[in-house]
Amino acid sequence: MFKIPDHQVAGHVAGAGKLGPLVDDSGRFYKPLQDGKRGTEEVSFYESFSSNTQIPEKIRKFFPIFYGTKIMKASTGIEHPHIILQDLVSSRLSPSLMDIKIGARTWAPEASEEYITKCLKKDRESTSVSLGYRLSGLRVFIGDELGFYKPERDVMRKAGPDDVRLFLMKFVSSNLESGSESESESKPDCSLVASVYGGDNGILSQLLELKAWFEDQTMYHFYACSLLFMFEKGLTSNPEVKLIDFAHVEEGKGVIDHNFLGGLCSLIKFISKILSDTNDLKNGLIEP
Amino acid sequence: MFKIPDHQVAGHVAGAGKLGPLVDDSGRFYKPLQDGKRGTEEVSFYESFSSNTQIPEKIRKFFPIFYGTKIMKASTGIEHPHIILQDLVSSRLSPSLMDIKIGARTWAPEASEEYITKCLKKDRESTSVSLGYRLSGLRVFIGDELGFYKPERDVMRKAGPDDVRLFLMKFVSSNLESGSESESESKPDCSLVASVYGGDNGILSQLLELKAWFEDQTMYHFYACSLLFMFEKGLTSNPEVKLIDFAHVEEGKGVIDHNFLGGLCSLIKFISKILSDTNDLKNGLIEP
Repeated sequence: MFKIPDHQVAGHVAGAGKLGPLVDDSGRFYKPLQDGKRGTEEVSFYESFSSNTQIPEKIRKFFPIFYGTKIMKASTGIEHPHIILQDLVSSRLSPSLMDIKIGARTWAPEASEEYITKCLKKDRESTSVSLGYRLSGLRVFIGDELGFYKPERDVMRKAGPDDVRLFLMKFVSSNLESGSESESESKPDCSLVASVYGGDNGILSQLLELKAWFEDQTMYHFYACSLLFMFEKGLTSNPEVKLIDFAHVEEGKGVIDHNFLGGLCSLIKFISKILSDTNDLKNGLIEP
Repeated sequence: MFKIPDHQVAGHVAGAGKLGPLVDDSGRFYKPLQDGKRGTEEVSFYESFSSNTQIPEKIRKFFPIFYGTKIMKASTGIEHPHIILQDLVSSRLSPSLMDIKIGARTWAPEASEEYITKCLKKDRESTSVSLGYRLSGLRVFIGDELGFYKPERDVMRKAGPDDVRLFLMKFVSSNLESGSESESESKPDCSLVASVYGGDNGILSQLLELKAWFEDQTMYHFYACSLLFMFEKGLTSNPEVKLIDFAHVEEGKGVIDHNFLGGLCSLIKFISKILSDTNDLKNGLIEP
């Protein structure tokens, strides 16, 4: 009944004797509670959010549906609590996915010194500080036989601002090689940019909807939270943006989440630029 | 011909044998170049900005006019280079002033470890990290005989988010006591909120204009830069917002200044809330 999801692009993975998320065939995602404060805080967030009447419906759709928690027995026989969520990709065939951790700062002001030091190091070594976000995972569907383009985690971790721009372009390109190779490739063709990033229902438009909410909401601060981009290759790519990973959400206490908002605006600017450059290229306004 | 400006609310002050800014009677402000990289970088910024044709006129008005540099002899006889700028308040009578340092982070990613450690400590101890900005200076004109309300620097340095909200309210209030006392005061009356923060030419409207530019511009990153709010008590308060202090401006390299933008959005939200609360109070929608 349960199986290991094959679409995960970031985070812990289940293995022999190792806890990791599971999915069932009814479209639910079972995420093992993280140890200590982290796990309980993620549950607290889902409980608070799902019962919060201040959340507009057009914003609620960006969040996975929460179905509660459940103690589950791992293959090792050990029992462990899990959060039950909507499996965001169960209805999709071979979706392309990108996981982007938002915020120049992944630590809350109230976190422990040890944790802050650890996060600050990662934030400075990645593009979090420079861009206000960093890539955590990426896979792009190429074709039934070729499978996916999927760069190694280590490659993404070391990515600088220009690499991130390139990954954002590859996400909407068709001329990729399968596997994790990327050195020898030609310039990403951005052939899907209009249908995935652009348009009324595209990713940019969804990000702008989120931005408007983040300019106003002072209930939650989403530290170390990710945006998940999804789409399918085909007639209707059906692009979708979701927020995931709420183990470090804090109360907003009347202050907007300027850290998330800043990173979101920076990402919006990168995507807008890719869209307008592709248009200019098509219209002959810039050189290939 | 030169005198010490009497309107400074933050930064270094000239004194016996000590360098500090000077003003002349033609409306120019002479700021001693800071030592080392800081001083040369501030000059570089003014030179780059004043010759930059990409800056819209409606944005340029937020910056002091730059008149070049000049070697000047201090009272001690020592020569020192100065930046010559527009004296922003020379045309005003008893202006109320607030200096707000924008950004959760006052350090550029390229700064030295020592400098980053120093800044991070200040950012965490103040409201920079929590609010995305901190108060650096404040004086509110009360009346010709009573003079100014002017909290001690130390009080502002220690201010938490609620104190900052209160200072933002006091800036547009008339029921203040002169000097630096603030403990015994009654709730700020926000009597000037509509004419200073509100309206088509008010501070909120100017901040929104700046925000639109920061969502787009990728030329400069304004670390440790301040917004200066000014107005005069009277028939036309003539509220004005300026950007000042550019010793830590870095090239944007195609990335928006998400750090400044986030802090600016957070400040905009605080000011919008003060405006709407005052309206609700006037309309009897909330209790005093």
